[in-house]
Amino acid sequence: MPVKVTILGAASAKPTADRHPSAQIVNVNEQYYLVDAGEGVQQQMFRRGINPLKLRAVFISHLHGDHVFGLFPLLSTLGLYGRQTPLTIFAPHPFGEILDCFRRYFEQHLQYDIEWTEVDTTSHALLFENRTTEVWSIPLRHTKPAAGYFFKEKTPALNVDKFKIDRYGLSVAQIVAAKRGENITLDDGRTIPNGELTYLPYKPVSYAYMSDTNYSARAAELIRGTDVLYHEATYASDESAAARERGHSTAAQAAKVALLAEAGKLIIGHFSSRYKDPRILLDEARAIFPNTETAEEGKTFEIGRG
Amino acid sequence: MPVKVTILGAASAKPTADRHPSAQIVNVNEQYYLVDAGEGVQQQMFRRGINPLKLRAVFISHLHGDHVFGLFPLLSTLGLYGRQTPLTIFAPHPFGEILDCFRRYFEQHLQYDIEWTEVDTTSHALLFENRTTEVWSIPLRHTKPAAGYFFKEKTPALNVDKFKIDRYGLSVAQIVAAKRGENITLDDGRTIPNGELTYLPYKPVSYAYMSDTNYSARAAELIRGTDVLYHEATYASDESAAARERGHSTAAQAAKVALLAEAGKLIIGHFSSRYKDPRILLDEARAIFPNTETAEEGKTFEIGRG
Repeated sequence: MPVKVTILGAASAKPTADRHPSAQIVNVNEQYYLVDAGEGVQQQMFRRGINPLKLRAVFISHLHGDHVFGLFPLLSTLGLYGRQTPLTIFAPHPFGEILDCFRRYFEQHLQYDIEWTEVDTTSHALLFENRTTEVWSIPLRHTKPAAGYFFKEKTPALNVDKFKIDRYGLSVAQIVAAKRGENITLDDGRTIPNGELTYLPYKPVSYAYMSDTNYSARAAELIRGTDVLYHEATYASDESAAARERGHSTAAQAAKVALLAEAGKLIIGHFSSRYKDPRILLDEARAIFPNTETAEEGKTFEIGRG
Repeated sequence: MPVKVTILGAASAKPTADRHPSAQIVNVNEQYYLVDAGEGVQQQMFRRGINPLKLRAVFISHLHGDHVFGLFPLLSTLGLYGRQTPLTIFAPHPFGEILDCFRRYFEQHLQYDIEWTEVDTTSHALLFENRTTEVWSIPLRHTKPAAGYFFKEKTPALNVDKFKIDRYGLSVAQIVAAKRGENITLDDGRTIPNGELTYLPYKPVSYAYMSDTNYSARAAELIRGTDVLYHEATYASDESAAARERGHSTAAQAAKVALLAEAGKLIIGHFSSRYKDPRILLDEARAIFPNTETAEEGKTFEIGRG
């Protein structure tokens, strides 16, 4: 299955009647990851038919309220629903202290474990890994320590072409060797290059999340070739001074990062409340990076296997 | 103007896609008070056209998350909007410690003062008073220390009937004395009883909020004669064991409190998520107290001056 990104919130710090603060679900091969958790995220999940009990891990970019205030109500609700499975949370320092406050005053007896790690926001490191997926941190440039997150599908095991198996009469040992990527020498002495025998069952895809941040060429380098990039675009270029000062980006800067990273697609979000309609931000980004879309709440972007 | 109560949330601890946790605005003579602050309360205020900057004071019934998690995002937003006016908050212990955690990790530099008081949930005390209004605490019976809040308009100053002023040729001094409630002796020796000269410009009204709580006859006595009572009705009577154990009430118990308090009207809310339609709770309450309505989100109840 492809990777699916469902936007739950794309507002900046000042929420509006119809825009929720930052939150999205990244579904990689039916493993559900929550990226940022603005106020109301649990209700947004209910509205989109996403069961919070399915969450495997949570990735918080930084500890401004509009990216994390929805986490604590969600943790309480998981308790009410009787979650037993441990939940993994990644967030910058001092997340552990904040979690202690929450547990001390609100949830002293959660039945499930919260396994949390404070992310080093200065390094590009492998944070999380399972059979099919890796998640890497991306150092961002904001007014508080902030990390982006880079989701990468692992390269799947090679498949051996059934027709080639018959044609060359490969033995089980030879098939296993071919799956390992080896060239195969037949009984008649011929050597068949591995590339002729095997193929990738699918092309692994990747997704990068970068919010909140100033323009960062370094970050762009770290996600080079990403299939899809979500990048904040809080302001239009006529507010670039405000963007720089407040640790945010303009739509044009988001597009430049996508261009530099050679991304397949750009999704912009985290719009300032002054933009009732983000069209002006979309147009500004598309002038530089045409394959740009806006993060509309409730919209799901499918990545790969298309 | 009448007292207006606008329901922002009427769900219990488990939110649903379309029901928000407890929160409501009590508008007394255009002074805005927030009673409980479940997650999403600031967006609910925006949706109802209520400007959060207008809030004069906040009253938190107890420190379960579904009654207070929306307060901290609201406090942050008030900072973003440049509030300068102090905000008064009443909540049970250990609210001060929780507020310290919030300020330490999220808002070290709010420009407005937060004047908070920890409410003694065992006593019926006058907490807040201004020219037109008093707010009293109501001891509740819940699994955490909890207080209800009783809003009472003060008796307005007497008006002197203009026709009587002419008829009896009252002097300014006599008018002032009549306003004080005194009987007036005319020059010809006749004494006019105050009641013949004066009238109340309006009948002061009252509103009582009781959530979360088990049935409490004592609380009912404390709000005797209230024009409107909001009382939690988390369950129907077939769940009375769960209600008792979890510190909640059935719809029938809410109606019994309204009956005992001789309330003019009952509003029930804080419905368990198991009741997709609160009709069963409304019917149960109306069988005992006919003038009952359900707390529908966005609905405004007007009290008095009708």
